[in-house]
Amino acid sequence: MTRPDLDRLFRPQSVAVAGASTNVDSAGHDYVRALKEFGFAGPVYPINPRADEIAGFRAYPSLSAIPADVDLVISCIPASGVLDLIAQCPGRNVRFLHLFTGRLSETGDEAAADLEREIARQAASAGVRILGPNGMGLYHPAGGVSFRPDLPREAGTVAFLSQSGNNAVEVIVRGSSRGLHFGKVANYGNGLDITPGEMLRYLAGDPETAVVGAYIEGVPDGRGLFEGLKAAAARKPVIVHKAGRTRAGARSAASHTAAIAGAADLWSTMLRQAGAIEARNQEQLLDLMLGASLMPTARNRHVAVVGGGGGRSVQSADACEENGLEVVPLPSSLREKVREKAPALADWIGNPVDQSILAGSGLSSNGLLELMLASGEYGCAIANVGEDWFLGRPDAGDRLQHACNRLADIVKGSPLPVAVVLGPTETTNAEHRALLDAVRDAFVAEGVAVYASVERAAFALGRLANSSLLPPPSSLT
Amino acid sequence: MTRPDLDRLFRPQSVAVAGASTNVDSAGHDYVRALKEFGFAGPVYPINPRADEIAGFRAYPSLSAIPADVDLVISCIPASGVLDLIAQCPGRNVRFLHLFTGRLSETGDEAAADLEREIARQAASAGVRILGPNGMGLYHPAGGVSFRPDLPREAGTVAFLSQSGNNAVEVIVRGSSRGLHFGKVANYGNGLDITPGEMLRYLAGDPETAVVGAYIEGVPDGRGLFEGLKAAAARKPVIVHKAGRTRAGARSAASHTAAIAGAADLWSTMLRQAGAIEARNQEQLLDLMLGASLMPTARNRHVAVVGGGGGRSVQSADACEENGLEVVPLPSSLREKVREKAPALADWIGNPVDQSILAGSGLSSNGLLELMLASGEYGCAIANVGEDWFLGRPDAGDRLQHACNRLADIVKGSPLPVAVVLGPTETTNAEHRALLDAVRDAFVAEGVAVYASVERAAFALGRLANSSLLPPPSSLT
Repeated sequence: MTRPDLDRLFRPQSVAVAGASTNVDSAGHDYVRALKEFGFAGPVYPINPRADEIAGFRAYPSLSAIPADVDLVISCIPASGVLDLIAQCPGRNVRFLHLFTGRLSETGDEAAADLEREIARQAASAGVRILGPNGMGLYHPAGGVSFRPDLPREAGTVAFLSQSGNNAVEVIVRGSSRGLHFGKVANYGNGLDITPGEMLRYLAGDPETAVVGAYIEGVPDGRGLFEGLKAAAARKPVIVHKAGRTRAGARSAASHTAAIAGAADLWSTMLRQAGAIEARNQEQLLDLMLGASLMPTARNRHVAVVGGGGGRSVQSADACEENGLEVVPLPSSLREKVREKAPALADWIGNPVDQSILAGSGLSSNGLLELMLASGEYGCAIANVGEDWFLGRPDAGDRLQHACNRLADIVKGSPLPVAVVLGPTETTNAEHRALLDAVRDAFVAEGVAVYASVERAAFALGRLANSSLLPPPSSLT
Repeated sequence: MTRPDLDRLFRPQSVAVAGASTNVDSAGHDYVRALKEFGFAGPVYPINPRADEIAGFRAYPSLSAIPADVDLVISCIPASGVLDLIAQCPGRNVRFLHLFTGRLSETGDEAAADLEREIARQAASAGVRILGPNGMGLYHPAGGVSFRPDLPREAGTVAFLSQSGNNAVEVIVRGSSRGLHFGKVANYGNGLDITPGEMLRYLAGDPETAVVGAYIEGVPDGRGLFEGLKAAAARKPVIVHKAGRTRAGARSAASHTAAIAGAADLWSTMLRQAGAIEARNQEQLLDLMLGASLMPTARNRHVAVVGGGGGRSVQSADACEENGLEVVPLPSSLREKVREKAPALADWIGNPVDQSILAGSGLSSNGLLELMLASGEYGCAIANVGEDWFLGRPDAGDRLQHACNRLADIVKGSPLPVAVVLGPTETTNAEHRALLDAVRDAFVAEGVAVYASVERAAFALGRLANSSLLPPPSSLT
């Protein structure tokens, strides 16, 4: 199985946009402006017979009228014009045609499905590979391409394949705000020609890609997907959110991307056998991609937990055990170290460390975390910020920021993964909101993986530890 | 089984605070100031032999020195002073003693456990009921009492019993920001005398309480808890988060509130048989309390879903079916109404309604939602705001606010529950953050139940529908 040559898809040397528009509230405008704002290095050719220029680029009446070769054509024209566009492709040595154009097989209309098949045939004989139709296409900041002008510009190493366009936007926007930096993202819609399986095989060997995420509704080519997942998962973490698992979900997927979705259990088994990690929803997908991208691999499943009060400690312990982590007690050597500083706590303190019993002892959650990480007993850790405690006290802001700065240093200095839990900023107090947002942004800027609940932190650590610690993924339950 | 008379606990006529402090960073100060800031109507007596006044109230050297009867004494003194405090109670006709005082049985120390038992004995013979020890006590805005001065002042009808203090604070703060208004909240810590079972029997008949939530780590009196849950659940929705389900969780619970936690399955069965609704974590607890408090009961499990793009629609369908809701197709009468306005969509559009195919059709998600709610086919609904779509467009703020205002009107006017999904405000764009926060706050101000993901909305609707639509809760799986 050779690795497909999709480099040029993500790094085209020149781009034309068919159906480019002067209307700033249209996709045909967005694609052109995005190339401008992402600093695309090659020539950009808007195609529009009624405009002289669009977003600062000279416009051409047709693809044929462009006086040079074009690597990638982005099509925003109606479906009825696509065959004519394809006919012009060989004359400009077009390699890739991305069809944002939709209203094809996904409508359930027979004539539209016929047209889609004809598009596939004619593109094949013209030597043009198709991404889409009915997809938003490419986002690759390092290559200067994006399907929207308003997405983050920072380039990274997280690849993401999404059958859904709005899901791709959500994952990029939400993920970026949590510290995920994306490399190659493709929204492939109906997946008529270039399939997720093919792209996965490509990403497996792509040196720019460290982590792969995928949102899949269904595929015609199950075997190809399996091979692609296996190839990628053998070399890097691959996280897959399979949607359209249920009867209603599959029905909805068919009218969204013409996908034939399948039974949930079969998919779970297939993903496991391929070595991929399954996410059941977007939140899990993001939580797992974040963990895989920002945290080192767990050394083992023994987890150290600090920073919550009593209730949070109990909830943390539940969450860890229910996600396959072992909340092992403090080793006696560590307990003796506690005894030196705080004799009254030495036989009371446990794992999770209850933050509320430390008051006045000279020991802090951060200090305990350092001792636990250094003890050799633990393979990963969860640090609850416990912000509710700070927020009730005088000088809450200073205290919280001081503690979080130190925590970020500990996390960055640790060879073990430490997931930080900072709640969902649900408060009516505007000052507290701003403070929590600032603290979260500071963690993100330091590359710390932050989760909004201990359950989500434990899920991510547990699932990733499972996938990295157990060599044969087929033996997992 | 008579209903315990705990009215006076939540509405004391006079309160003394033993261990009241002039140090603004201490619980002994917080309790006094909270009474002031919550406008407690009766006399407040700080007890402190070294202060003349605390937070504006005249201080007394001892409980005995107070020149009047005292309904409730809040104790912030060390455990070693509690027996002496109890000895002074009969002289002031004290009915309730709340022991914030901890470091008793939860430490695992035998002498401390002995002292706790002696406290129980002497309080009983003094005719004093004890709340706690090792608990933050009471929050009841309508009665002017709160365990912290900085909590929301608005009084409501949601009662909450919490074994953990910081969990109680989190639930109040987070819940309030989502539109939950609390009535009687008690953090009972070790539960030495007044038990959650007794409080549940009281809340069952309390006309001020419409919804009951509880966070329980463990109870010595399982039968009493079961009877309390059954009494309350027979009259109002009761949602229970049982923590300390796992081995590690139970170990942690023992050192937190000296609770003997038990096997998860037994608890689930017990809760179901009592007619209570189980939450597995704080997020679920809040999501269910919010749904029970803000939404009417579902007429049936047929759910109408609108407002997402294609990917969100598929994910919504999965989430609904996996939570026991049925995503039934549009009735033909409704499809004909669509045909009148948008013939091309009539045979394509489905449930969930894919927002992205409506563009240019003259139909909107809100319009479809109204038609679906009026169709007689559905028993509940989920409305995705689909904010990622708006945020990418010019005039995003105006469009989003206009659509959300109309959605809020539809929700308020509907006899069926409509859960609104507005994402978690994860974006690096400060303007978008502010906009999403403003939109969320506006929904909350209108009493609309907002969930941060479609999975959470479907969970809350599905779980609450299950509990209200199936008469014998013991038949549920």
